[in-house]
Amino acid sequence: MTATTRRIVLARFCDGPPVAEDFRIEEAPMPEPRAGQFLVRNILISVDPGTRSRLSGKPSYIPPLKLGATVGAFSIGEIIESRHPDFAPGEIVSLADGWAEHVIGDPRGFVRRITDRRLPLATWLGVLGVSGMTAWFGLHRVASLKAGETVVVTSAAGAVGSAAGQLARLHGCTVIGVAGGQAKCDWMTGVAQFDAAIDYKATGDLSAAIAAAAPKGVDVLFDNVGNAMIDQVIPLMRQNGRIVVSGQVDAYNSDESAVAGIRNTRAFITHRLMMQGLVVFDDLPNWGAAETAMADHMVRGELAGRWEVLPGGLEATPEAFAGLFRGENTGRRLVRLAPDPDDFPKDTS
Amino acid sequence: MTATTRRIVLARFCDGPPVAEDFRIEEAPMPEPRAGQFLVRNILISVDPGTRSRLSGKPSYIPPLKLGATVGAFSIGEIIESRHPDFAPGEIVSLADGWAEHVIGDPRGFVRRITDRRLPLATWLGVLGVSGMTAWFGLHRVASLKAGETVVVTSAAGAVGSAAGQLARLHGCTVIGVAGGQAKCDWMTGVAQFDAAIDYKATGDLSAAIAAAAPKGVDVLFDNVGNAMIDQVIPLMRQNGRIVVSGQVDAYNSDESAVAGIRNTRAFITHRLMMQGLVVFDDLPNWGAAETAMADHMVRGELAGRWEVLPGGLEATPEAFAGLFRGENTGRRLVRLAPDPDDFPKDTS
Repeated sequence: MTATTRRIVLARFCDGPPVAEDFRIEEAPMPEPRAGQFLVRNILISVDPGTRSRLSGKPSYIPPLKLGATVGAFSIGEIIESRHPDFAPGEIVSLADGWAEHVIGDPRGFVRRITDRRLPLATWLGVLGVSGMTAWFGLHRVASLKAGETVVVTSAAGAVGSAAGQLARLHGCTVIGVAGGQAKCDWMTGVAQFDAAIDYKATGDLSAAIAAAAPKGVDVLFDNVGNAMIDQVIPLMRQNGRIVVSGQVDAYNSDESAVAGIRNTRAFITHRLMMQGLVVFDDLPNWGAAETAMADHMVRGELAGRWEVLPGGLEATPEAFAGLFRGENTGRRLVRLAPDPDDFPKDTS
Repeated sequence: MTATTRRIVLARFCDGPPVAEDFRIEEAPMPEPRAGQFLVRNILISVDPGTRSRLSGKPSYIPPLKLGATVGAFSIGEIIESRHPDFAPGEIVSLADGWAEHVIGDPRGFVRRITDRRLPLATWLGVLGVSGMTAWFGLHRVASLKAGETVVVTSAAGAVGSAAGQLARLHGCTVIGVAGGQAKCDWMTGVAQFDAAIDYKATGDLSAAIAAAAPKGVDVLFDNVGNAMIDQVIPLMRQNGRIVVSGQVDAYNSDESAVAGIRNTRAFITHRLMMQGLVVFDDLPNWGAAETAMADHMVRGELAGRWEVLPGGLEATPEAFAGLFRGENTGRRLVRLAPDPDDFPKDTS
């Protein structure tokens, strides 16, 4: 009897918000690592709104996923078989090989070894994973954040935004978070200690609300929403303001042609604005220092993660993903496929 | 009898393209320099499309000009009376004090002393003035231009664009110029030696035409037109592309709310694009080196200016300005108020 594993493939192209029926669980032969690779049994897998942009079958900047292909995703797992001299069975790694019970790890692609046992394993898919790194390098490399500046973060209770706002606070900045709903606002001013939280669903004039919270103007906009949001904040920006294009929640679900445009560009000249996007893997050589600094903040209780781990295994994953687009998640959403190793602190999410 | 001078003031707010009747010539007492100032008799004054944005009476990023106020503009003139210890009568300066026969110079504001006698005086209001400096610092500071890159310049036969395209060529880049009309294209491929010139008026699909001229993609867009143009070029941009927001010809005449938006912002993430505007006076401490480098290029015949000097004195200025918005100018448009000093080469424009 050949060993088998299970994975989730794209059953049909998404049209609008994804639903569980867009996906299918498939049984497959256990993958076999080649020389320089290893086999990983996944413990936690991530569901991420950014995945949506690859599921419509339409050519975009990123090649679309084909029908029947395994859905890509970040995960954390344990090496159970290795044909790589530097990686041994029992080691814990973070990698990006998809919604599957077993994946092949290859350090020529994206693999992070997790050796710091001070924090729950799930942390490494959230604050200390791609979300937190995007926040860190967006603020520090792209925006060259300076202490004393005023920072607006949008989708500020989300995985990236919650890290960005807290990192800006820890850097000595005034932080204004924008998100939808009172619960998220309570989290922002309570746990995350932002200076102000604005509920865009309850605020008639978002621009006026931000202006009231930022009387000196906005130095940095860390945006996870998209063009319409950026266009509203631009008139509030100070000289030499920076806009970090971190994510586009607004665009993942819709046709690009339906998305609003940024019209207030005259301020790019008059106010010397700069807008830049980032792909955080460009910063991979510098992740180690950022991980250490952020893990230290977390251990000292200065930086709160915002994630949830859903039970239910692979079967629960499509529905967990679909729920993101109904706003059901609390920060980064993970699905548990296997128990954590004993030598990590318990996950309290 | 008190000495008098004449100046041009705003007679009524502009609505749409400016016309000569929006302005009025006014006689006024000769201005008197205070301590630290000097009196300048203007020789050449500049008419500039950017002035339009201050003439509608509507609040914008720049305060609007009031009715009856002298219209602001760059000029070059001769000091005829000085109360500043470092400036003597007979010296030639460039300054920014408006459409007037006499203006007060004050080095605490914008004043450049012109001592290099190798080139015609008008050069210092064009290639070696604000236009050329905008091109230089847009390419070198904002875009960090590298040899071998592909550069698209829009409004590329205009005062700023013509300098930007040639400076990019001199830096070892492939240059594609976009402008309207065959005469401008002939100038771009002939005198300016751009690698390609595209007549947007004659080209059905501008994006396809640029793509054909830039098979490797576009590294730098130096834009003088506005959002709709930027949106068309973004999909052609390479990884780490830079967009210099230099000017917005499209917007000067219209209500900001009527202007198209930039929609293709997803590429800011996927392609790590950066967009930044500039106000060239921020670079004033570094103008000297740029002026010298560009003047050397001009003396060697490697960099062609693009300007015209109209006769007719102050009376001709409103109509010269209005003509800009009918596309009548050839590069930077100047109006002569007095003959050049003898020690400058003759203007051949």
